[in-house]
Amino acid sequence: MSETLRIIPLGGLGEIGLNMLVVEYGASAVAIDCGVMFPEPSMLGIDLVVPDVSYLRDRPERLQAIVLTHGHEDHIGALPFVGRELRVPTYATGFAHALVEQKLAEHELALPLQRFKAGDTWRVGPFEIEAVHITHSIVDAVALAVTTPLGTIVHTGDFKFDQTPLDGQPSDLRRFAALGDRGVLALLSDSTNVERPGVTPSERSLGPKLEAVFRRAKGRILVSTFASHLHRIQQVFDLAALTDRKVAVVGRGMVQNVTVGQELGYLRVPPGLLVDLGELQRLPAERVALITTGSQAEPLSALTRIAMNDHKQVTVGPGDTVIFSSKMIPGNEKPIFDVINHLHRRGAEVQYETVADLHVSGHASQAELALMLNLTRPRYFVPIHGEYRHLVRHAALATEIGLAAEDCFILEDGDVLEIDSVGAHRAESITAGRVFVDGKGVGDVGDVVLRDRRHLSDGGMVVAILAVNQHTGEIISGPDLVSRGFAIEDESQAYLERAKEVVLEALAALAPESRTIPAEVKEEMRKALRRYFKKTLERRPVVLPFVMEV
Amino acid sequence: MSETLRIIPLGGLGEIGLNMLVVEYGASAVAIDCGVMFPEPSMLGIDLVVPDVSYLRDRPERLQAIVLTHGHEDHIGALPFVGRELRVPTYATGFAHALVEQKLAEHELALPLQRFKAGDTWRVGPFEIEAVHITHSIVDAVALAVTTPLGTIVHTGDFKFDQTPLDGQPSDLRRFAALGDRGVLALLSDSTNVERPGVTPSERSLGPKLEAVFRRAKGRILVSTFASHLHRIQQVFDLAALTDRKVAVVGRGMVQNVTVGQELGYLRVPPGLLVDLGELQRLPAERVALITTGSQAEPLSALTRIAMNDHKQVTVGPGDTVIFSSKMIPGNEKPIFDVINHLHRRGAEVQYETVADLHVSGHASQAELALMLNLTRPRYFVPIHGEYRHLVRHAALATEIGLAAEDCFILEDGDVLEIDSVGAHRAESITAGRVFVDGKGVGDVGDVVLRDRRHLSDGGMVVAILAVNQHTGEIISGPDLVSRGFAIEDESQAYLERAKEVVLEALAALAPESRTIPAEVKEEMRKALRRYFKKTLERRPVVLPFVMEV
Repeated sequence: MSETLRIIPLGGLGEIGLNMLVVEYGASAVAIDCGVMFPEPSMLGIDLVVPDVSYLRDRPERLQAIVLTHGHEDHIGALPFVGRELRVPTYATGFAHALVEQKLAEHELALPLQRFKAGDTWRVGPFEIEAVHITHSIVDAVALAVTTPLGTIVHTGDFKFDQTPLDGQPSDLRRFAALGDRGVLALLSDSTNVERPGVTPSERSLGPKLEAVFRRAKGRILVSTFASHLHRIQQVFDLAALTDRKVAVVGRGMVQNVTVGQELGYLRVPPGLLVDLGELQRLPAERVALITTGSQAEPLSALTRIAMNDHKQVTVGPGDTVIFSSKMIPGNEKPIFDVINHLHRRGAEVQYETVADLHVSGHASQAELALMLNLTRPRYFVPIHGEYRHLVRHAALATEIGLAAEDCFILEDGDVLEIDSVGAHRAESITAGRVFVDGKGVGDVGDVVLRDRRHLSDGGMVVAILAVNQHTGEIISGPDLVSRGFAIEDESQAYLERAKEVVLEALAALAPESRTIPAEVKEEMRKALRRYFKKTLERRPVVLPFVMEV
Repeated sequence: MSETLRIIPLGGLGEIGLNMLVVEYGASAVAIDCGVMFPEPSMLGIDLVVPDVSYLRDRPERLQAIVLTHGHEDHIGALPFVGRELRVPTYATGFAHALVEQKLAEHELALPLQRFKAGDTWRVGPFEIEAVHITHSIVDAVALAVTTPLGTIVHTGDFKFDQTPLDGQPSDLRRFAALGDRGVLALLSDSTNVERPGVTPSERSLGPKLEAVFRRAKGRILVSTFASHLHRIQQVFDLAALTDRKVAVVGRGMVQNVTVGQELGYLRVPPGLLVDLGELQRLPAERVALITTGSQAEPLSALTRIAMNDHKQVTVGPGDTVIFSSKMIPGNEKPIFDVINHLHRRGAEVQYETVADLHVSGHASQAELALMLNLTRPRYFVPIHGEYRHLVRHAALATEIGLAAEDCFILEDGDVLEIDSVGAHRAESITAGRVFVDGKGVGDVGDVVLRDRRHLSDGGMVVAILAVNQHTGEIISGPDLVSRGFAIEDESQAYLERAKEVVLEALAALAPESRTIPAEVKEEMRKALRRYFKKTLERRPVVLPFVMEV
């Protein structure tokens, strides 16, 4: 008799990023991916978000392995944090392996890392894991076929069906077909681009468009793209060689990835093409191309500094062309447009998403998602990697393909899908969620702290300090009021003086027996000040009263 | 001999929103528009941004009138604030006039308001002002031709050349042609959509698309759009009538504008079509349509409440269709998608920008901007209403039309273009900028306050309080540490206890003569705590030390 199979998303279902999903059979489990989410604007002061893995931590023997589908941060970035708690064999393909090694070294963490490649099959506990090559905006990306005693689960990872990828290796369509032939129990498929009709354009389709810009450009060319996108970087190298330009690489992440990409043989760079910045500066502008980080206007990135005229070695000016070969990640539009405006102020010509089509997505559009569904013809379907709206739409697409609505399961983080020999059904949810990383602290900033930060950011704060005689309650000194982020100091001085009187009046009205109880005095101060700020200025600063008994 | 003509943008050049521009001849001036900007995410706690009008305030006799081109907030919203300082005759067309009246009443401010209509010409000081009808996403929008002794300045306001507007009144093309014939000294033209090739689709083109959704919908239909967009609202009324649905209007702003629109005759509503919510609830779902505010996911708006299942009278569920007939204003994407996800969770079908084409812009695209340039054939060109990238692109478009590059002036707020009988040139810039409105306070929150709020939002704050003997410097009590937005209280208690010891050690190491100087004690406390938080947690809370001398 077989045990129960459980599919448990710990992240990435109901949100973009934070991808981590557990496949559990009986008392054994593997996790697929271990990614971060970049903080939303409301997560004030947060550096990173990692998945809450308490479900696995509380069952120490259960997890047998973590398998990574590719090297993007939203699939590997949580490993340094999660890995401290769950030290299990961790499997990654070549490029992802190199990125993870670097990352773990930076965090001074050693994990039992294993390398695998597309086509490999290996056993972990009751699972047979097979890696199937797929195309994505990073090399060495795979889908996983996890075969359990109850059947095979196909997890696509992030993918598109690029039929003419730059490296000549399209997704392994025939393997997906063979898996479908053999029978797929459940398909878990990438929903990121389900809102887009048709087919995502091939990476190769960018070539002629980028070439046109390269041929037109009279001065220097700066191309900003994602540092892990080796195929995009290859296209820039190729075009530079074609148009007789030398290339320099700017920005720490870009330099790292270009180095790793060359070492692993993913980047083919003709000798003499790549030069350092010093050499580049001696070349005429029309012989120069730069590849830089900063496509998301990260504050310390090369391109942002260049735009602000704050880079030590690189400047841009009239005649130069800056290309954003990247998508504006939602939420980053404002800072990216700030950088674009600054580049215009320096006189550069700027090519970006809204005016030029110099990027293609790495995620499958509707026709490709339908193709994946038709190739694998799963018994059950679980849309993954997406906000709720994406998951709903992907499930609707599956029903158009012919799946029964009751065989499509829209799960969110912590939801549990149980499959046994009888069928599939939702089981009781488990604890899942987001853990905030703030500086060196992991998990010590929670929702209450964020609520306080929002409150502070909204109205600043006013601290009120009073010294009282601990026996009589008589005011010895104060109240002194100190504010931050409340109002311009010069203008608020007189205002805060009046606020002091308001506090004194409120305390004078307090019953004598309350005056010796600090908690009551504090509460009265808080109430009086809040009321006063609300009435006079319609503001709600954080009011922090303090009573010192001496 | 003629005087000098000066064009002085006080807002809206180098940014979206905050539109206000001064045309000055000798010692007389008129201002065109008086708009707000909605705060950017970095403007923490700010409710509104209004233009800094100190240039006009410091020259009390200069401003003769404010003329409003149309009733959008980014053209009229600053009037209640600016109007307190600059009480001059203010001119508005019918619908804008009604909106301004409402707005001033809410702010308990009376201004000398004048009504005008497209085609009107009137004198203000040395200026002859003519209003030219243009089409935009609000009724009663005009361009202005301001004739001075040196020539005519055409200010387009916001516009598109909708050749088939819903009310049958296209922009007054022939008047622009006539002005061009007579000679236009300078054209100031809307740059908002200069990044878009071709022509912005007509408002009328939405009809069939919306109709298809109305005909397909089985349950209730909720349409969310901008409350001032009477033509869009008219289309919803018409389609509801066509498909045998009754309409209720939800949301304060929507109710107000529909009322005004009916009173002024802009909305034609067949008797019996419009019903109240109570009546609507007694109708079967397929007989119901709602028009609501909340297309930008404003937290208190009707649609946001409905999505959260928090509206007193309206719920949505499976079978219902929600239409966002609106653009996602940049920066609002995240909250809008949150609302969309929640609507999906309730089972509704949702039509929005990324999946359906149910909105058209009110701003001219490249071909229309070129048409405006060709109709008016100005001597000088100043692109207005846009970020720097828009202004650069619009100037480049003008040179393609045949204007000389040196006759195109890219100005930003506070820049001054002087034109005299000899020619045009940039003059020294004047003071311009942004004034923040926070609650009832106007201008008492500045950049330093915002920096403090950012700092507070990033790391929270820690207040450290010490009571010392004012003569000996001996510590009587403390340090007591209180934090907000720093870390979860339970987890940080032990940590803050250690921080106290760090403070005491630092103070013990202080020279005895420094211990009686509160400023030095405070500085030492601040330094010790900052160092400690940085080293142990890599965090930078606002540290506020306080020394009470008793």
